[in-house]
Amino acid sequence: MTEDIYDKIVDLAKRRGFFWPSYEIYGGLAGFYDIGPYGLTVKRKIIEAWRRLFVFNHQDYVVEIETPAVGPSIVYEASGHVESFTDPVVRCTKCGRIYRADHLVEDALKVSAEGLSPEELTRKIRENNIRCPVCGGELSEVSTFNLLFKTQIGPYEGSVGYIRPELAQGMFVSFRRVLETMRNRMPLGIAQVGRVGRNEISPRQGMIRLRDFTIMEMEFFFDPQSGQCPNLDRVMDRKLRVRQYKVRLEGGGPQEFTVRELIEKKVVAHPCMAYWMTVGLDLVKYIGVTEDETFFEEKGPKEKAHYATQVFDQLVRTSRWGWVEVAGYAYRGDYDLSRHMKYSGQDLKVFEPYKEPRVEKVKKVLVDLAYAGRTYRSRASEAVKLAESLPAEEAERQLREMGKLRVGDFEFPASAVKIVEVEQKVSGRSYTPHVVEPSFGTDRLLYVALERAYREKEGRVVLSLPRYLAPVDAAVFPLIEGEEKLEARARQLRDLLVSAGFTVLYDDSGSIGKRYARADEIGVPAAFTVDYQTLEDGTVTLRDRDTWRQVRLRLEDAPEALKKFIYNLVDIAQLGKPVEPEG
Amino acid sequence: MTEDIYDKIVDLAKRRGFFWPSYEIYGGLAGFYDIGPYGLTVKRKIIEAWRRLFVFNHQDYVVEIETPAVGPSIVYEASGHVESFTDPVVRCTKCGRIYRADHLVEDALKVSAEGLSPEELTRKIRENNIRCPVCGGELSEVSTFNLLFKTQIGPYEGSVGYIRPELAQGMFVSFRRVLETMRNRMPLGIAQVGRVGRNEISPRQGMIRLRDFTIMEMEFFFDPQSGQCPNLDRVMDRKLRVRQYKVRLEGGGPQEFTVRELIEKKVVAHPCMAYWMTVGLDLVKYIGVTEDETFFEEKGPKEKAHYATQVFDQLVRTSRWGWVEVAGYAYRGDYDLSRHMKYSGQDLKVFEPYKEPRVEKVKKVLVDLAYAGRTYRSRASEAVKLAESLPAEEAERQLREMGKLRVGDFEFPASAVKIVEVEQKVSGRSYTPHVVEPSFGTDRLLYVALERAYREKEGRVVLSLPRYLAPVDAAVFPLIEGEEKLEARARQLRDLLVSAGFTVLYDDSGSIGKRYARADEIGVPAAFTVDYQTLEDGTVTLRDRDTWRQVRLRLEDAPEALKKFIYNLVDIAQLGKPVEPEG
Repeated sequence: MTEDIYDKIVDLAKRRGFFWPSYEIYGGLAGFYDIGPYGLTVKRKIIEAWRRLFVFNHQDYVVEIETPAVGPSIVYEASGHVESFTDPVVRCTKCGRIYRADHLVEDALKVSAEGLSPEELTRKIRENNIRCPVCGGELSEVSTFNLLFKTQIGPYEGSVGYIRPELAQGMFVSFRRVLETMRNRMPLGIAQVGRVGRNEISPRQGMIRLRDFTIMEMEFFFDPQSGQCPNLDRVMDRKLRVRQYKVRLEGGGPQEFTVRELIEKKVVAHPCMAYWMTVGLDLVKYIGVTEDETFFEEKGPKEKAHYATQVFDQLVRTSRWGWVEVAGYAYRGDYDLSRHMKYSGQDLKVFEPYKEPRVEKVKKVLVDLAYAGRTYRSRASEAVKLAESLPAEEAERQLREMGKLRVGDFEFPASAVKIVEVEQKVSGRSYTPHVVEPSFGTDRLLYVALERAYREKEGRVVLSLPRYLAPVDAAVFPLIEGEEKLEARARQLRDLLVSAGFTVLYDDSGSIGKRYARADEIGVPAAFTVDYQTLEDGTVTLRDRDTWRQVRLRLEDAPEALKKFIYNLVDIAQLGKPVEPEG
Repeated sequence: MTEDIYDKIVDLAKRRGFFWPSYEIYGGLAGFYDIGPYGLTVKRKIIEAWRRLFVFNHQDYVVEIETPAVGPSIVYEASGHVESFTDPVVRCTKCGRIYRADHLVEDALKVSAEGLSPEELTRKIRENNIRCPVCGGELSEVSTFNLLFKTQIGPYEGSVGYIRPELAQGMFVSFRRVLETMRNRMPLGIAQVGRVGRNEISPRQGMIRLRDFTIMEMEFFFDPQSGQCPNLDRVMDRKLRVRQYKVRLEGGGPQEFTVRELIEKKVVAHPCMAYWMTVGLDLVKYIGVTEDETFFEEKGPKEKAHYATQVFDQLVRTSRWGWVEVAGYAYRGDYDLSRHMKYSGQDLKVFEPYKEPRVEKVKKVLVDLAYAGRTYRSRASEAVKLAESLPAEEAERQLREMGKLRVGDFEFPASAVKIVEVEQKVSGRSYTPHVVEPSFGTDRLLYVALERAYREKEGRVVLSLPRYLAPVDAAVFPLIEGEEKLEARARQLRDLLVSAGFTVLYDDSGSIGKRYARADEIGVPAAFTVDYQTLEDGTVTLRDRDTWRQVRLRLEDAPEALKKFIYNLVDIAQLGKPVEPEG
C-alpha cells in the first residue's frame, strides 16, 4: 500500500459515524476521540472476537475480570509507573510552549532519539542549537513528565490516586483472590477489557495516539520452572513472521519461524510468548489483515517498558503511519508480583502441594520474643506471627537492603532477627509465577480494520469489511420513496430480520442508487430491495456490497440467506436467481 | 424479605469470585470493587439485556456510542457539575477528620437532612451541639466538596480536566455529529455504557455506593412540541407502580397506574418518561426482580439533580439497605443542550424542514458594520457573520443578561446590535430538543440479581439466578476422581458443549456431592455427570440446580437439551428419563 488514505478514512469515519474527534463543539482536544454508532458496533465485534479467541477458547484456565479505572498511589508506586512512566519534555524559555524532547530532536536532526536520557537529549539540543520551532526561543533543560493522570481520592488532600495507564495492575493486585476463586489451579490467565488513560504530552496521530482509550489485556501467570504452555502442541507448526532486535540492528527484516523454531532457537523468552502470539495473529487476521501486512518486532533494551525483560510488538502496516503497533507481548517475569509483595507485605506466591509431604531443609525467620514483648506489648504476638511468617528470602533481602525487618507496621532491628535452617515436613513448594502479557489497542484495531476495508469503485467508496465485522448486517429498501405498498412489505422484511437477531438499516428516502451508495460506505454487506415484483410473487432482491451482483429470493427466506451470507461466507450466487444489476 | 442477607451475599461473592473490595492487599479502599470472573459474566449479560431492550429493540432511532472518560473543564462548567455536583462536608477542628455533613446530622438527630444548605446544616450542628463522633472535637462550618475527580490534561498546569461523573455529557457534546450521521432524523436516542467516577466523601455501603462504577445511560432527544413517543401505543395499558412526591409527603405508598393514566393525569412530564419506564421495568424483571419488589419514586424539588425538572428513581427492595435506586429517569428538558450552546457558541438546534417553504416574519440580528470594522479590522467580516447567524432569542437573552453580545471571541455592545423583524422565506423550523434520560447503575443491578437469587437449601447455598443469567451454562463432572475412562468421556462432553457456544465448568476433583454444591453456589443451572452407565450406553445425567432432580439423556443430545433448558426454560422432566437423585 503506497497511497496515504488516512484523510479519506478520517473523512469517511466522521461522515458515516465511525469515529470523530471528541469535544468538537469546543474546538476539540488532542488525544480524545468519540466512537460513533457504526464504529462502536465494529469495535464491539473486535472485542467479542478477542474474548472468544483469548478467553472463551481457553475457558478452563483463562478468566476475565473488571477492576476500577482509578487506583491509589501505592499501587502505581509498586508497579514502577510513578517513577518510570515518563517522557522527556522541554520548555521554550521565551513562549512557554512545551514539547516532547525526543520528538523535537528527531524532527530537527532526522535521527532516532528513542530511549535517550534527559541529559543526552539536553546535550543534543545544545550541541545542535535546536530552538523552539514556533518562536525560535531558547529551550530549557530536558526534564521528565509523568504520563499518569493524577487525581485525589476522597476529601483528604494528599490522598493521591491515578487513572490506570494499563489494566495490568488490576490483575496483579487481585491475583491471589482470583486464583483462590478459580480453585488455585495454575496456569491462570486473567484478562480484562477497559479504558485506560495516558497523559501524552502532545499526541499528534489522531486515532493512533490517544490519551483515553480501550485496551484488551491478559496477564498469563505460569510456573517458570515448567517451560510448558497449555495447547502448545496445537500450534507448534504455525508460522510467525518475527524481526529479532539483533536482525533489525543489522538492517534485516522479519523472518518466518515456526513456533517450534521460536522456542528451540530461544527467540522467545518462554514458549507461552509464542503461543499467545499465534492467538494474536488470528485476531489480527480476523479483522482483515493479511499475514504479509503484519509481523512481530522484538524491542531493544532501551525501547522496552520498565517492567519487561522481553517485548514483541505486533505491527500492522498503515498507509500514513507506516508499521504501527496494535499489540505488545511482554514477558513481565515476576516483576509485578514481586514488587506488590514488597510494597504490600503480602505473600502472593503460588503454593503447589506435593502429592506426598517431604522432609526438607528450609530457612525460617525467628525473632527475639523479648524484644517483641518490650516493643509491641499487647500487639507482640501479632508482630511475631507476622514476622515469622515472612518468607526467609524476603527477610534476608530486607536485612540486606534496610538492615532491619519491616512487616505491616512492625519493625525489628537486625539484632532481633535470626534466620535459621531447620528440617521440616514440607507439603508443597511456593513460587512466584511468571507472566506473559498480550495487550491490544482496541481503537487502533478499529482504525486498521477500516483502512484495510477501504475501497474505491467507480468513484464511490465501498467499505469492504469482513461481512461478520460490518456495523449493520443488512439494508432494507423499498424501491420507490413514498410508495406505501412497497414500504409496508419492506417494513415487514425489516421486522422479520430484526426478529431473527440481525441489525438492519431501513432507508426509504432518496434514489435507490444513493441508498446503495450510502450502505456501501457504511459497509453493509447485504442490501434487500422490495420492488413491484415483490408485490406480485413475494420475492426480493439481495445485493452484494462488494460485487454489486444481485440475486432474487423469496422474502421469507431472507433471514436464512443472510445468515449463510454473513457467517458461512457463501457466494451470493448460491442464494437466489441472478438479476441484472440496476443501479 | 426481612432477613438481612447482605453479609451472606458479600461472603459468597468473595468466595466464589463474583466481586470483592479492590486493592485488598493494600488494605482496601472504600468505594472501589473488583468484579470477578463469575460476576463479570453476569454483569455482561445484564449489559447485553439492557442493550437489547433499549438499543436493539429500538434500532431505527436509538444508537450507542462511546466517549472518553476524561473531559476538559469547559464541558463540566457548561453541564453545571463544577458548580453544583457537590456534597456538604464538615471537618473536625481537633482531629481533622472530614464528614459528610448531612449524613452526620442525620445520624445524630435521626431526621432527614437531604437537600439542606450548608448554612442550614451548620445551624443544626451548632443548635444541637453535634460534635466529632470519633474524638468529640468541635466541628467547622459546613462547606461543599465537589465530587468530580479532578486531573490535568497535558503538560500545561491549569489545563484542568475531570473524570466524567455521568456518561450524559458525552452524548450532549456530540449530539449534533450523531444526528448528522443518523441522517438528521428525530427522535434520536443516544445510549452509552461506561465507567464513571464520583469522588464520594466517605462511601459506606459496599457495592451500593461506589466511587468508580459502570452505568448504562440513554439520552432520548425529541421535539418538545410533539407530545408523542414512538411505540407508545404498544405500552399504553402496561401498569407501573409509582409513588408521586405529593403522595409521599402525605405518607402514602406507591400506586398502580397504567401508562395511559400516567400521561392523562400528567403524573409524568412527558409520555417518553412513561415509555422508557416500562422498558426499564422489563430490564429489572429480567434480572429476577418481581413487580411487587420494585416501583418508581418521584423525587422532590430539593432531591433532584441540578439539571432535571422531573426525576423518578426506580427502586428495588434490598435486605439491608431497604429501597435502593437502581435507575433514575430524568426529564432534563433542554437544559444541557442550551448550556452547551451558551458555552460553546455553537448551534445545537435541530432543523426540521417544512414540506414547502413558507413566508414568515422572523427576528434577525443585525450589527453595526462600522463598529465591527473599527474594532475587529481584518476579522470584521468573520465577526459580523458569526454575530448575525446567532438566533435572535439567544441574542436577546445575552443583551438582557449581559448587556452585550458575545460570540466566539467577539463582543458587541448593545448599542451596536439591532434585532429586527423581517419577512423571510423559511424552509423549516429550528428547535432545541428535550431529553428524557433513563440511567442504570450496572453494579447495583448485579448486586440485586445475586441477592434475589440467594437461597439456602438443606444448609447449603444455591444461587438461583435466572438460567439465562447464570455465570456458567453447565457443569460437567466425571463421577469418580481419577478414573481415566470417565474423564475422557467427560472431556468429550465438555468439548461438545463448548463447540456449541456454551461456557462449561469442568471439575474432576473431590466428591460428586461437593462438586454439585460448588456449582450450586456459583449458580450453574445444569450439571452433567458422566458415570459408569455412560461407558455402557452413552447416556449422562443432567441435574437441575434448583430442584436437584435428575434425568438421564444421550451424551450427544446434551447441547440441544441445554439450549432448551436455558433459553426455552423447559422443565428438566421434558429432557430425559427421571433418575433417583444420588448426592
